[in-house]
Amino acid sequence: MAGKPVVTACLIVIGNEILSGRTRDANLQYLGRALNALGIRLAQARVIPDDEETIVATVNECRAAFDYVFTTGGIGPTHDDITAACVARAFGVDLARDPRAEAMLRQHYRPEDVNAARLKMADVPAGATLIENPVSKAPGFQLDNVFVLPGVPRIMQAMFEGIKHRLAGGQMVLSVAVAAYIAEGVMAEKLDRLQGTYTDIEIGSYPFVRDGRLGVSVVLRGAEAGRLDAAADDLRALIRSLGAEPVEDRKT
Amino acid sequence: MAGKPVVTACLIVIGNEILSGRTRDANLQYLGRALNALGIRLAQARVIPDDEETIVATVNECRAAFDYVFTTGGIGPTHDDITAACVARAFGVDLARDPRAEAMLRQHYRPEDVNAARLKMADVPAGATLIENPVSKAPGFQLDNVFVLPGVPRIMQAMFEGIKHRLAGGQMVLSVAVAAYIAEGVMAEKLDRLQGTYTDIEIGSYPFVRDGRLGVSVVLRGAEAGRLDAAADDLRALIRSLGAEPVEDRKT
Repeated sequence: MAGKPVVTACLIVIGNEILSGRTRDANLQYLGRALNALGIRLAQARVIPDDEETIVATVNECRAAFDYVFTTGGIGPTHDDITAACVARAFGVDLARDPRAEAMLRQHYRPEDVNAARLKMADVPAGATLIENPVSKAPGFQLDNVFVLPGVPRIMQAMFEGIKHRLAGGQMVLSVAVAAYIAEGVMAEKLDRLQGTYTDIEIGSYPFVRDGRLGVSVVLRGAEAGRLDAAADDLRALIRSLGAEPVEDRKT
Repeated sequence: MAGKPVVTACLIVIGNEILSGRTRDANLQYLGRALNALGIRLAQARVIPDDEETIVATVNECRAAFDYVFTTGGIGPTHDDITAACVARAFGVDLARDPRAEAMLRQHYRPEDVNAARLKMADVPAGATLIENPVSKAPGFQLDNVFVLPGVPRIMQAMFEGIKHRLAGGQMVLSVAVAAYIAEGVMAEKLDRLQGTYTDIEIGSYPFVRDGRLGVSVVLRGAEAGRLDAAADDLRALIRSLGAEPVEDRKT
């Protein structure tokens, strides 16, 4: 397991409705977890408006900086769905009607319901590979390391399931969470020393209030199960040394 | 109202726990709405890890590109709370203990509970103005156009309430939403023409499924109430011309 490269991904959430607060994004959390399970680290996310220049610049910046880029949103039939055209422009290729995508749409709609706006959903950048949509048929697409998905979470998730096999994972990140009803500030100095001892483990500290009681959840993340177990044992001892009990263990 | 400048903001969400999917961000939606009510447009959001180089680079890029920058996360007492140090580095200033912040913390904790880790929360970049925390006392701070806030939504929101008066809003964006039980693809071509007629109105189209029925919510956003009303009237007529009824109106 050790020695495998760290594989990174970036999510670009495209949509004015997310930035205005009208809609609460759900794709970031889903993708963070789903990628993690494949050994891919979601290293950054951008939420950007339906603006051509911004989309093109962001896609080009991110596809150069991360192993994989996922976009969500902006691939429907209306005038504000500009993601496919922007990705084509980012890659410097033409947007062209894909015959297979067109056939999928024509099979899905009654002949009298096929119109120019709906057929627009069959336009993808030249050289792209389709991503099938088991829910509402309008496909997404992959171009190089960029995967273009819809914004509706249920459809996005169904389509992501279908492309998992195209993704090459790297070093798996394992995690252990240990919680205690203790104030974060009481534990901080000892936790800092624990981090100094385990430089290969990423230690995150997250305060919470549950049933009116203040506590902290400490999440240990690392590549080697043995090291993680050792760090978790030391963390439990640390908590007990402060007069508290480790009350929760969640291993993934 | 027209003629006022467009004022933009960027949110930087700092936290590995958001990217791993462990925690679902709630601050983006809150801030998008709250800024909108002040005449400030949330123009972009970044979600980045607890990594010094990334935080410094992102703060510097965003504070140059947007009128206001808000950060959430990473200002607690533990070793992984590095936001204040990173913002100081981004501005090229020292991180220094703020006597007023230290006094707030010493007043909040019993003397025996004051420790070095907790006092770290009184360290802010030189020249920063404190942002008071009515919930748990550890302050945030403002440096130039950058506002540093905590990640816990309840505390972040309470602190944001206290800094609203420091923000200069620009052109207010008004919006009207009209929904209809009609497929997005049926309305798309006429909606595109409506957008062509009202180039000063931003028209967004958002499909939904409610009670098993497919519909679309069309959101009109613009600066002038009269133009917005005219566009909304035309939109309602458009919906009726397709044999459907406009079923919802939400004005803000």
